[in-house]
Amino acid sequence: MALIVQKYGGTSVGSVERIQNVARRVAKWKNAGHDVVVVVSAMSGETNRLIDLARSIQPIPDRRELDVVASTGEQVTIGLLSMALMSLGVPAKSYNGSQVRLLTDSAHTKARILEIDSKNIQTDLRSGKVVVVAGFQGVDADGNITTLGRGGSDTSGVAIAAALGADECQIFTDVDGVYTTDPRLVPEARRLSTITFEEMLEMASLGSKVLQIRSVEFAGKYRVKLRVLSSLTDPDIALNEEENSGTLITFEEDKMMETALVSGIAFNRDEAKVTVLGVPDTPGVAFKILKPISDANIEVDVIVQNVSTDGKTDFSFTVHRNDFERTLESLKIVAKDIGARDVTGDDKICKVGLVGVGMRSHVGVASKMFEALSKEGVNIQMISTSEIKITAVIDEKYMELAVRALHQEFDLATSN
Amino acid sequence: MALIVQKYGGTSVGSVERIQNVARRVAKWKNAGHDVVVVVSAMSGETNRLIDLARSIQPIPDRRELDVVASTGEQVTIGLLSMALMSLGVPAKSYNGSQVRLLTDSAHTKARILEIDSKNIQTDLRSGKVVVVAGFQGVDADGNITTLGRGGSDTSGVAIAAALGADECQIFTDVDGVYTTDPRLVPEARRLSTITFEEMLEMASLGSKVLQIRSVEFAGKYRVKLRVLSSLTDPDIALNEEENSGTLITFEEDKMMETALVSGIAFNRDEAKVTVLGVPDTPGVAFKILKPISDANIEVDVIVQNVSTDGKTDFSFTVHRNDFERTLESLKIVAKDIGARDVTGDDKICKVGLVGVGMRSHVGVASKMFEALSKEGVNIQMISTSEIKITAVIDEKYMELAVRALHQEFDLATSN
Repeated sequence: MALIVQKYGGTSVGSVERIQNVARRVAKWKNAGHDVVVVVSAMSGETNRLIDLARSIQPIPDRRELDVVASTGEQVTIGLLSMALMSLGVPAKSYNGSQVRLLTDSAHTKARILEIDSKNIQTDLRSGKVVVVAGFQGVDADGNITTLGRGGSDTSGVAIAAALGADECQIFTDVDGVYTTDPRLVPEARRLSTITFEEMLEMASLGSKVLQIRSVEFAGKYRVKLRVLSSLTDPDIALNEEENSGTLITFEEDKMMETALVSGIAFNRDEAKVTVLGVPDTPGVAFKILKPISDANIEVDVIVQNVSTDGKTDFSFTVHRNDFERTLESLKIVAKDIGARDVTGDDKICKVGLVGVGMRSHVGVASKMFEALSKEGVNIQMISTSEIKITAVIDEKYMELAVRALHQEFDLATSN
Repeated sequence: MALIVQKYGGTSVGSVERIQNVARRVAKWKNAGHDVVVVVSAMSGETNRLIDLARSIQPIPDRRELDVVASTGEQVTIGLLSMALMSLGVPAKSYNGSQVRLLTDSAHTKARILEIDSKNIQTDLRSGKVVVVAGFQGVDADGNITTLGRGGSDTSGVAIAAALGADECQIFTDVDGVYTTDPRLVPEARRLSTITFEEMLEMASLGSKVLQIRSVEFAGKYRVKLRVLSSLTDPDIALNEEENSGTLITFEEDKMMETALVSGIAFNRDEAKVTVLGVPDTPGVAFKILKPISDANIEVDVIVQNVSTDGKTDFSFTVHRNDFERTLESLKIVAKDIGARDVTGDDKICKVGLVGVGMRSHVGVASKMFEALSKEGVNIQMISTSEIKITAVIDEKYMELAVRALHQEFDLATSN
């Protein structure tokens, strides 16, 4: 008998029928003797509808008032789900962010959670109720409604699980777990039964969209066990079967088995690369190049600086493809200032990365990766490594080929 | 420079354009130097949409959760209207019922207001903001969201005006005031510049739908000056012109001019009458007749009992037409029990009533009314009088004729 926090996203509660399906799934866990807290998003499309309504009145909506409007989406869902549970004979009670009270700072539309008062929730759980909490929203110290920003419902779920000391936080989504790579690209991709937080973070940073990075960080920080499960399976499937499904995101020390070399392959084609050529290799030059980029609110990802020859070096980095033109313009000005030779760029690139905590204790992963790519004739333009990740920037036309080749090379289709 | 509370109903905020119109109207009052608090309903159709959604999940929705869902309608409006005001350069801030805090009892879906904390609103007014408050909703002592029931936004407006000691509570609606009778029936009907609370209550009880009875009672109790105004006029009309428009509902002692004999004529065709014939005239018999009706939650209006002859009397009353059949069935059982002769009924009747505080000090109003009806050949089936109202129950086919005849007889088209 455990305390479980379940989080259901907008698609899972996108219609009356789906809300009723969620209720059946929750009822099953409750009837098996578990205490259940459910965190829900707004019905799919609802948050966008509300934001569009706001924008039609004020093109850049006041953030406080936008939160007032947007937070109603989840409030509707918590009421409806509570009703659906009661219809099944399961006592239930809803809480919005202010009722919890989920205290945040006052950064409207992207607030940070400061504190969660779980007293009332615990009282309701003891009295046998399922507690249904609005995700994505909180309240600041002055009683203003705040929202946590996109993906905030995942974070709400994890934060509530942490505050309650829950045994597990289950994120129900439209995929049934974390895969070795995207199964749409590689049909042999295999669902991982476990993955570590660090691996999950690296996968997410490389474009795997299963979980929001922020919620994974939060879970890691507060040591909440996260499990990714599908909300699209039959809600009447036996609980034992379901309990063993999905992917458990866990702590490295909890991993029982011998760790695989590579856990997964992530990729991202929303990237562009820029290079400043012939940069005088003097102290502070990297700062001079990146300062105007960061001032323009452009996020920079992989950064590579070659070894200097003749006091000159080449400096490359990647940005989001949408920021490519702006970045080039900025750099042309900077290049003159610092006496660099030229600026080049390419927005037809992608990132492909291997992730795995097993890399730490093994050598040769990188060379095996580069060999596999070379066998397929894929030229590597940039390389960046961390302790548990190797990222290669390549021409985007080779992306599928590269992912499939690496998936096979590291034998990921086979359970390990 | 006054403190004004303005209330706008669902139709007035039913679209982005209408919300922008409301903002222009509010801005005009604010820019004229007034402090303005705006109370708003949900956008028209929104509350019904939310209730339908709830019913599709739980046919008789849990009342606490229904309030959680339904209260989001007004919350969206307060955010949008605040944005619209800011777009016009008017500083604004929204409050939902819990933020005000508008404390109610825990009778979900029909809660009563207990207390209003106006401290924060007053601080915001002093700092030059327009305060936008969600009507219809409050919060109970345990922090549960409550709603005040249909028409609750008017009551919210009046209650907030009372708590703030506002100079006037303006109810903006789709008519431009209270008329001597319905102008759709009598084109010569004249807008009243003032009417007393008692008259307004009697008009409302006779079917005039300009204001909710409950909000009028509330305003009378807390001595809040109410003004009914149209939200459909050009919002850019000069303020002086507008200030003199509408109908002010006021206290009898504040009426400056000589009071007219009759202020208005109200009518209602949603009625049916039933009569128990040959009722033994013994103590407690009225109770025996009405108890099962009240137990069945049927509301009884005009009750008339004739003078007894030979120890037998006839007992009549009116009910809503929808309850006619149920009432007859109930009475047939009761009639047997108490030894009454028979039960008859008629659902083709209507009520027509004269209302005016001037009646108190004048005799002959009733006879003048009956004479006017008799001249038109209208037979009066039941009569009921109060200090400031005379109601006649007549065949519904004569309704328009009777209203027009009385409007002319009492010279209501002429300003008095």
